[in-house]
Amino acid sequence: MPALQLHPDRLLPSDPATRVIARQLYDVVRQLPILSPHGHVEASLLLDDEAFRDPASLLITPDHYVKRLLHANGVGLERLGVGVAEPTEDESRAIWRTLCAHWPVFRGTPVAYWFESELAEIFGVSERPSEASADTLYDQVAACLEQPEFRPRALFDRFGIEVLATTDDPADDLAAHASLAADPTFHGRVLPTFRPDRYLEPGRPGWRAAVESIADEPTSCAGFIAALAQRRAFFVDQGGTSADHSHVDLGSEPLSDAEAERIHRAAYDGRATADDATAYRRHLLFEMARMSTEDGLVMTLHPGIRRNHHRPTLERFGPDQGHDLPLAMEYTDALRPILERFGLHPDLHLVLFTVDETVFSREIAPLAGFYPSVYVGAPWWFLDAPDAIRRWRSAVTETVGFSKLSGFVDDTRAFCSIPARHDMARRLDAGYLAQLVVEHRLAEDEAHEAIRDLVDSPRRVFKL
Amino acid sequence: MPALQLHPDRLLPSDPATRVIARQLYDVVRQLPILSPHGHVEASLLLDDEAFRDPASLLITPDHYVKRLLHANGVGLERLGVGVAEPTEDESRAIWRTLCAHWPVFRGTPVAYWFESELAEIFGVSERPSEASADTLYDQVAACLEQPEFRPRALFDRFGIEVLATTDDPADDLAAHASLAADPTFHGRVLPTFRPDRYLEPGRPGWRAAVESIADEPTSCAGFIAALAQRRAFFVDQGGTSADHSHVDLGSEPLSDAEAERIHRAAYDGRATADDATAYRRHLLFEMARMSTEDGLVMTLHPGIRRNHHRPTLERFGPDQGHDLPLAMEYTDALRPILERFGLHPDLHLVLFTVDETVFSREIAPLAGFYPSVYVGAPWWFLDAPDAIRRWRSAVTETVGFSKLSGFVDDTRAFCSIPARHDMARRLDAGYLAQLVVEHRLAEDEAHEAIRDLVDSPRRVFKL
Amino acid sequence: MPALQLHPDRLLPSDPATRVIARQLYDVVRQLPILSPHGHVEASLLLDDEAFRDPASLLITPDHYVKRLLHANGVGLERLGVGVAEPTEDESRAIWRTLCAHWPVFRGTPVAYWFESELAEIFGVSERPSEASADTLYDQVAACLEQPEFRPRALFDRFGIEVLATTDDPADDLAAHASLAADPTFHGRVLPTFRPDRYLEPGRPGWRAAVESIADEPTSCAGFIAALAQRRAFFVDQGGTSADHSHVDLGSEPLSDAEAERIHRAAYDGRATADDATAYRRHLLFEMARMSTEDGLVMTLHPGIRRNHHRPTLERFGPDQGHDLPLAMEYTDALRPILERFGLHPDLHLVLFTVDETVFSREIAPLAGFYPSVYVGAPWWFLDAPDAIRRWRSAVTETVGFSKLSGFVDDTRAFCSIPARHDMARRLDAGYLAQLVVEHRLAEDEAHEAIRDLVDSPRRVFKL
Repeated sequence: MPALQLHPDRLLPSDPATRVIARQLYDVVRQLPILSPHGHVEASLLLDDEAFRDPASLLITPDHYVKRLLHANGVGLERLGVGVAEPTEDESRAIWRTLCAHWPVFRGTPVAYWFESELAEIFGVSERPSEASADTLYDQVAACLEQPEFRPRALFDRFGIEVLATTDDPADDLAAHASLAADPTFHGRVLPTFRPDRYLEPGRPGWRAAVESIADEPTSCAGFIAALAQRRAFFVDQGGTSADHSHVDLGSEPLSDAEAERIHRAAYDGRATADDATAYRRHLLFEMARMSTEDGLVMTLHPGIRRNHHRPTLERFGPDQGHDLPLAMEYTDALRPILERFGLHPDLHLVLFTVDETVFSREIAPLAGFYPSVYVGAPWWFLDAPDAIRRWRSAVTETVGFSKLSGFVDDTRAFCSIPARHDMARRLDAGYLAQLVVEHRLAEDEAHEAIRDLVDSPRRVFKL
Repeated sequence: MPALQLHPDRLLPSDPATRVIARQLYDVVRQLPILSPHGHVEASLLLDDEAFRDPASLLITPDHYVKRLLHANGVGLERLGVGVAEPTEDESRAIWRTLCAHWPVFRGTPVAYWFESELAEIFGVSERPSEASADTLYDQVAACLEQPEFRPRALFDRFGIEVLATTDDPADDLAAHASLAADPTFHGRVLPTFRPDRYLEPGRPGWRAAVESIADEPTSCAGFIAALAQRRAFFVDQGGTSADHSHVDLGSEPLSDAEAERIHRAAYDGRATADDATAYRRHLLFEMARMSTEDGLVMTLHPGIRRNHHRPTLERFGPDQGHDLPLAMEYTDALRPILERFGLHPDLHLVLFTVDETVFSREIAPLAGFYPSVYVGAPWWFLDAPDAIRRWRSAVTETVGFSKLSGFVDDTRAFCSIPARHDMARRLDAGYLAQLVVEHRLAEDEAHEAIRDLVDSPRRVFKL
Repeated sequence: MPALQLHPDRLLPSDPATRVIARQLYDVVRQLPILSPHGHVEASLLLDDEAFRDPASLLITPDHYVKRLLHANGVGLERLGVGVAEPTEDESRAIWRTLCAHWPVFRGTPVAYWFESELAEIFGVSERPSEASADTLYDQVAACLEQPEFRPRALFDRFGIEVLATTDDPADDLAAHASLAADPTFHGRVLPTFRPDRYLEPGRPGWRAAVESIADEPTSCAGFIAALAQRRAFFVDQGGTSADHSHVDLGSEPLSDAEAERIHRAAYDGRATADDATAYRRHLLFEMARMSTEDGLVMTLHPGIRRNHHRPTLERFGPDQGHDLPLAMEYTDALRPILERFGLHPDLHLVLFTVDETVFSREIAPLAGFYPSVYVGAPWWFLDAPDAIRRWRSAVTETVGFSKLSGFVDDTRAFCSIPARHDMARRLDAGYLAQLVVEHRLAEDEAHEAIRDLVDSPRRVFKL
């Protein structure tokens, strides 16, 4: 049975002299606490602190990275437990076997890298997943999950997480966050993130209900804006430090008050045109930036995704099943209204993410290299893997150096992948800096300072 | 006179430890047979099996890779034999001398790499092309061409080609393919490929004649669609396994029957607007996908080319003279109609090629990483060279691994370049995998399995 | 205090065997004279040959590369001397201290690389900039500037500059150029460059005045075109060899005479629509290409920049303050009118630059690989740094080799950075070629020839 062993030098550069330096740099940050300023783990997971149910529903079913590549190789989502809230042991084991039998399809992907790291480091697994090893591995992981040291809080501590941000609806009462903060037995920081996407899309079904769920005066733009500001203030009160936005483009042209009120009323009455809806969404994004200058919430932008590309899959299985797909993007002109008005404001932090890597060198780094408010977001979804991260570093560093980067963001729903992802980022940082040192583009003492700053930068950028 | 010598480690990584592993991986696949599922060699070449006429008309005049860079350096196409069906020996020698005298302009390009490989490996040449060596080389190649072991079938065997696909017009009677298949003395498989571009472009001159050449009822869309289905069935009967499509974009929105009939009739009568023609072409592309789910022909897409950019050259010398030029492309939205309808169909294989490398990581890999029907096409025209192939591997592997790739496709008109091109791809695969091994991202046994699968994958993807 | 030392192998590849070859290649070109065919140093600087005033106004205030990253880190432009013509010593020293205190923000950028090279090689500085070293460094540089060997002409000679092109308004009398050419004590060649941007933009304020400043018959297109041709002829007389153009896109569709006259008249009267203005600008760009076929001026294109993105900064500090930002670009279709008409003309040299690196492999290299008139411009603004230059070489070489490249272009306003920039380019060329040699894609003797040709190519491409 092929062994599973994590090499201590994994992901470090192949050139021997460069690897030596990279190893030293990695050692500087290896043990630093994890700052996770953006992700999709639920606060209730840590509040309830219940044992994870079973290997499949912990490691497979909720992780669209894992599911999508199995799906692409002919495994229907119904075979992966999607839609099944509480799989039986047989069901869970069947899902696990499916994954293990398909293990070769993950070769060369970060999914294999993270998953093997998790198995080895968290669960002590020493065999590679395969049809033959599936049951042994399943049993080993399942046995772990029964132990108290594999409950969420114990893992949170073991992972060395200092701060974990969740992603939350503006109408959320954030009760889980409050309970966690009030719990003297829990020492981590779990912060809410304001995510108002569905409130800013008057063209989508459910918008009116969303508005009504937070606004006392839902029929006017002014009333709605006031309600959004109030909800943001509540998030700030509960420790939130950022607001996250994901729309199909980054348009941010503000409307006149009259036009904003006209469209709001039309949308409320179900009469807004598609162009109206887009214009109003852009107006609201501008307003979000304005509010950020007032309440200080860091504004993060994750644009350019065609959500739920395959409608039959959406209808059958719901969203977040791995068919959100990237689109080509434009940042320079789209963000100009926000930046002309607020780009030099000392309280605005605007972190730009992308799944279109062409904008790294062409738009995001040039913007962050002039505007004090703009930061380059770490590579995200599809680009959060070793080669892509190297391309990203190459694309942005020469324009902005290291001071205007967001720091690593795991953005994950897979709780157990958090340490492997951050460790990966630190190894890649070490490799990149070592390369600069070997090419005499950076002195060794500078590299030592730089890697520490890189790992700690979310504290500064996300105002943690 | 500078020597021409092919180093056994050419194209393998420079780092010594990585090179050792790469060499081992390359050895696994070095001798495997060549599967060429898409290209532009004619079946009649192998049927007739006549001696190649002369060095220039074999190696220079038909190869737009060679011609375009000479042209870019001031050599008019008239000096390269374009338009001359049967050059005299003096003419052929003059063309050859022109190439040799300009040899330095090919430095750093795959043309130099392939051409030198062909000269050394096929013709035993041991001097680098130059003004001084031109005549010696010409004589040496010309002498070879007179020998029986340099006839097409002998070379086909020597190259180790197992399957060679041609590219054919839907109206073609495929007689050469049938004769080859019936010939007990020929053991290779030469398969037709259905290439209906000009039938799907009602906006182009000649469309009505094309429709009439295959349809019994050319005046209706329904009659035309039926005729296309019949021709496809004929290609399937003759061993065809794929249909290839190259339009300026990938739009695939279907029309209502009534609208399709209206535009067909208008186009047939020469009254279709440009928008009509585009809409109908997109409708027909959708129909092609539908037919693929029925007859099983693999659908390959080579979009995004502005054909014959320089009209005066087209008018003087005809198409395929090296001024087809790439355009920026969009895949995610354009293919959505096909994918929503047929993306999960088990019989559809949709292979996506591009000359806009920005879509590798942004659209093609994400699509292939969810849809079971979608495969990532190997780098094509302008991108079928070592550095570009490395960029492509880096861009797609982390999202789709190795299981959803087309395998190498030479797409060449230059028969003698086939082995050098496939050998190049195998060397690059070995180097890429070796790098993963050295960085401990893949175990060595996995790399050995992976490289074998990569070389064999056209069998699976193209249903050979 | 950390030392500042330039390693002799800086920027050469990390693999030891590759580095040895790179070093040999670098030695071939290390001492060759500098050809700078495009930049923004003023001729008057060399004519007047006055001592540079102070360290800040020499090295910081005019260099938007330096300013923009300080600005991005919260240093207002008013703290960097922008708008202050003659800073006092206290002011200059304060600016210098600001830079030194922020030195870590430049880590990993070419600004740090160039600046440290300048300090060490020109001024003999041996300490790294920092808050602690700021005053020492200031004093050391200031003391140098008082010496005659640090005057512009002495540095020009010391830098080994053979040709330096300036950038000039069509209405300029080029008196400084004439005086320099007539000065028997000055041996360099300082050439004017025709830069008519503001004359080709009828939609911008000041266009009518610009037209009137050069045209005897400013009210007609014909009169204006004649005036432009006359001014170009004057530049040619004064030694100019190129005309540079920077518009938001590359559209080049010509108008009929009547339409051109109509729009000219409308624009002259302030009645032109935005579409009119764009159409006329494109017509004029086509005319510039036509004139180049007649007067031989090399046509260089630097498109795709949103100038002065942050209007409040423009209003307060004027243009060129570091917020010109890149846009996505299209070359294939936009340039088709020029190329269909003049693309094969033996006297046209068209050099294509970009700040959108996606077009390197997709459009620029394919165009230059067919059209004899088209050359690939070296990486420019945002992309003129080591990693970006490597990406560029990788993206274009396989399509065009080395014969159709512009050669390095520094495009700088920072006189003292010229030698460091050219030296950087030579080191990167050596590294790239060494990599080809080690991978057996190029013979060593070919690499030696190639690097010499690369450094000398501006002579040929820019007709120096």
